[in-house]
Amino acid sequence: MQKSKDLASIGIDLGGTNLRAALVDRSGKILDMRLARAADLDAQTILEKLVGCCRELIGSGNARGFRVPAAGLGVAGKIESSKGLVVFSPNLPNLNGYRLGKNLEDALRLPVRMENDANVFGLGESFAGAARGFANWVGIVLGTGAGGCLFLDGKLWEGDHLGFCAEFGHIIVEPGGPQCPCGSKGCLESFASARALVSGARRALDARKIKEGPLRELDNAGKLSAEVIYRYAKNGDPLCLELFDKMGWALGLAISNLFSALGMRRAVIGGGVGGAFELFIGSLQKTLAANCSMLGRQRPEIVRGLLGDSAALIGAARLIPVSG
Amino acid sequence: MQKSKDLASIGIDLGGTNLRAALVDRSGKILDMRLARAADLDAQTILEKLVGCCRELIGSGNARGFRVPAAGLGVAGKIESSKGLVVFSPNLPNLNGYRLGKNLEDALRLPVRMENDANVFGLGESFAGAARGFANWVGIVLGTGAGGCLFLDGKLWEGDHLGFCAEFGHIIVEPGGPQCPCGSKGCLESFASARALVSGARRALDARKIKEGPLRELDNAGKLSAEVIYRYAKNGDPLCLELFDKMGWALGLAISNLFSALGMRRAVIGGGVGGAFELFIGSLQKTLAANCSMLGRQRPEIVRGLLGDSAALIGAARLIPVSG
Repeated sequence: MQKSKDLASIGIDLGGTNLRAALVDRSGKILDMRLARAADLDAQTILEKLVGCCRELIGSGNARGFRVPAAGLGVAGKIESSKGLVVFSPNLPNLNGYRLGKNLEDALRLPVRMENDANVFGLGESFAGAARGFANWVGIVLGTGAGGCLFLDGKLWEGDHLGFCAEFGHIIVEPGGPQCPCGSKGCLESFASARALVSGARRALDARKIKEGPLRELDNAGKLSAEVIYRYAKNGDPLCLELFDKMGWALGLAISNLFSALGMRRAVIGGGVGGAFELFIGSLQKTLAANCSMLGRQRPEIVRGLLGDSAALIGAARLIPVSG
Repeated sequence: MQKSKDLASIGIDLGGTNLRAALVDRSGKILDMRLARAADLDAQTILEKLVGCCRELIGSGNARGFRVPAAGLGVAGKIESSKGLVVFSPNLPNLNGYRLGKNLEDALRLPVRMENDANVFGLGESFAGAARGFANWVGIVLGTGAGGCLFLDGKLWEGDHLGFCAEFGHIIVEPGGPQCPCGSKGCLESFASARALVSGARRALDARKIKEGPLRELDNAGKLSAEVIYRYAKNGDPLCLELFDKMGWALGLAISNLFSALGMRRAVIGGGVGGAFELFIGSLQKTLAANCSMLGRQRPEIVRGLLGDSAALIGAARLIPVSG
């Protein structure tokens, strides 16, 4: 029997554009990593790339003296974890209905567990990041869309296993508000995501009849992005600053509802757009104070994720607990 | 040692007007009951009345061959259960800051547990009512205000023990909407409660410049109540029907947000105003279908409480598990 320090797991983050796979030791340290492109590939090719990356990492682990007994996989979308099945992935539609987790498990002959990307973010931040020591907390991942995870009594909450959970991006914050890709209107995601920033900027340019200027030109050239809007906001552009204010307002309302409903007071915000934390936290805190009357004088704790891109890798590697 | 069938507990429901105390056997059957007025009494007098009722019920139980090893107490408001303390009770302000549960325990020399009234409703419906067999569900109690309870994995969820939890009445469904007594605007409670029906009817009479007619006359005479509005709605009055439609809309939004967030699909609605179930369930279901896109084709289950007034008594009696 090997010593317990000699175990490492594979954590995979499968995004809409790239897949990243990492070898992670039991302290949460990333020992080695592989990157491959995933966009526009069919399901079989994605599986083959995953298998290739994992085999390389297993070899790399063995060479370093580690045994690699399991792998975990985070994928954006509706996942049926118990079946290793991607029910619906908005960014990788070729995976819809494909048993990616199950097939990876069969190919590697290792236990593999697949989860929603926001859940693996949460497992990472919980183990080695901003949520370390939190028993009850909500995680919100702001990227192209807005995902969520919920930790209760220190454990990832999975509800009735309906194929969705902690879908905080689809909490309605403004009934009748902007159309969300999910079919509803006024979801958190339609105010707090990269997509919301771009469509919000367009709506504002149109509403204010702004026909020229740098933002309009960027839009006409197809170059209006969340990154551009962030940069303009940092430089004091009022229209862009308002979009982050609105994002904070929407986040404040959603978090207020969650805290009132769950009797808790801690949230961690991550994801690429979560990096704009300083631009929305003021408005978020103000909205939370105005709407979460239940908290009274008890201070809410709203913090940014600490692990960046690594949260998903570290969290995925912890989907299957390993012991020596 | 007595046989286990010979145990019964006391369950108390302390409302804004009356207190009711019941002797409940382990199957959830109410064996005997006491009623006393609670409104406008000071804390010490309420305690004395409770002690009196409980002693009578213990005597009654003993005479029937039951041992009575514990009592449970449901009180509307913010309760610190572990301290037996009423932090804040909107309907019985004389109890604010009073350790009612602790003092009752000392007086009776029996273990006593005090909880929020919506939580004891939930324990009752869970044990012997509409939520029997549900692991994960939300309970909403529509009375003067709107309370809630949350059951996860079959257990009452209490969050971070902040003195509030499952405050579904204070989920914001319409930002900037009607003022709620809690200080926020557009809470569920400001659409779905007896108070909301009365203030909603007044707002509608004013907005439509209705200066005469039966509803206006009832209001002028100080006789506009939730019961009256219910009766008018049942008789087809359009203004009153609209109020119940709006109630269903608000409940549908709040429940949609809870289901998306918690990955579940079951709710039980109780309380006096919950008795108007048939007047709001249509609008509730329609709103839920339009807003809870996550559910997809999985059917939500929204049912009415089955135990009426007895839910709180039966639930309170189960706050302390007893065994023979």
